[in-house]
Amino acid sequence: MQRFKVVLAYDGSAFCGFAKQEGLPSVEGKLEQALLSLGIASPILAAGRTDKGVHASHQVISFATHLPIDCAKLAHYLPAKLAPHIVCKAITPAPLDFHPRFWASKRAYRYVLAPKVLNPFLARYIAPHPHGSLHDLQKALDLFVGTHDFGYFCKQGSDPKSTIRTIYKVYCYGYTICNLPCVVVVVEANAFLRAQVRLMVGAALACSLGKMSLLDLGDQIGLKRHIYHMPLAPEGLILSRVSYGESLSKFQL
Amino acid sequence: MQRFKVVLAYDGSAFCGFAKQEGLPSVEGKLEQALLSLGIASPILAAGRTDKGVHASHQVISFATHLPIDCAKLAHYLPAKLAPHIVCKAITPAPLDFHPRFWASKRAYRYVLAPKVLNPFLARYIAPHPHGSLHDLQKALDLFVGTHDFGYFCKQGSDPKSTIRTIYKVYCYGYTICNLPCVVVVVEANAFLRAQVRLMVGAALACSLGKMSLLDLGDQIGLKRHIYHMPLAPEGLILSRVSYGESLSKFQL
Repeated sequence: MQRFKVVLAYDGSAFCGFAKQEGLPSVEGKLEQALLSLGIASPILAAGRTDKGVHASHQVISFATHLPIDCAKLAHYLPAKLAPHIVCKAITPAPLDFHPRFWASKRAYRYVLAPKVLNPFLARYIAPHPHGSLHDLQKALDLFVGTHDFGYFCKQGSDPKSTIRTIYKVYCYGYTICNLPCVVVVVEANAFLRAQVRLMVGAALACSLGKMSLLDLGDQIGLKRHIYHMPLAPEGLILSRVSYGESLSKFQL
Repeated sequence: MQRFKVVLAYDGSAFCGFAKQEGLPSVEGKLEQALLSLGIASPILAAGRTDKGVHASHQVISFATHLPIDCAKLAHYLPAKLAPHIVCKAITPAPLDFHPRFWASKRAYRYVLAPKVLNPFLARYIAPHPHGSLHDLQKALDLFVGTHDFGYFCKQGSDPKSTIRTIYKVYCYGYTICNLPCVVVVVEANAFLRAQVRLMVGAALACSLGKMSLLDLGDQIGLKRHIYHMPLAPEGLILSRVSYGESLSKFQL
């Protein structure tokens, strides 16, 4: 038995989300199908389950097999079966007990936003939302840094064991894509709740536009009042990094 | 009765093509539906019918209505009904007898190609084809300039009245998109046959790669031998310009 770790990028707009759903195209379903066609019938473990429309430039998945296949062979056959909406960025061996979700120490998302996206070739990849100044946006984002109970920043019904998460870093900057001035927000945390980034950044945008005060935002982070409920559009959200500790990097040396 | 001319851009990967097809999402169907919801039940006239997966950055359509609606109102209501995959770039009044196809004097397509597209966010917009040097590609493209019978450069079964077309210009250049070095081919003609650009550029790529000689290509253009049959992938093809003569520009002044 051997296990592999695969780094993937995918266009989330081609799928109903990462997780399998009956009769709909999912990233997980496409991966299972591709592996099955190579004789590998393994459950797919993933670092995180991105929602419908959410992209990945660096998602980590893993699978195991009894077949005597190596990374070079997988790298030869697998990409063509996943193209064009899923791209394999790296295939490496992993410890038999490697789990991309439980072993991950950090994740980062990148959110690309612009007030109006009047270019159909960018519409899948940029969330159409107005924003205030970068300075005001950053002041709101700063409130999220640290360990908090994000119970008011997660989709109802997702019901995780704990809603406490630690945000290590969150920052924003301006970036021009095909002549369209955008704002990019990067959030790095130990882990994320369902729709957490879309709710956090949505509340911070509301603050930057003066629709919500920093006091309101502080109250919502402190679970005193639940003011902001609307997750932003998924289009511009990208799972952009999953980091692992030393145990995995030692294995792969 | 009044008639409007609308310039559209659209992401062809979201549609089965321009033309309506039962049970499938088409550009034409989406336009009809959007106009119907504004009380406008008009057939849609278009400058050209792009195939499945082919994009437009400048397609021209037209419709007529008895309603007392003006361009400003249309520009206010129509775009939201077409977003995100279709974008209205301009809405102007047009003569009652304006027909975007029959009145057009020139069309241009732009084809974006790269040997490998290992970025899922670009895969819908760049055709994955290898090519030789720009110099060799241009030498092959040059053979198309002028008036020729393009009967061997059109999809079988499309059966137009005449297969004679005039190519005014065809040129290629290198262009980097999100760090990916691409080749762009621009073709300008009075009109195009079905899949003509995909077959022309495919044959020119084959010449640039040494898989076909310039003599072979000349023979195919001269209807002596039918050597090259495979249209390139539609992903990187964009209808990028439709030009009209003076009569229309005078009306719009």
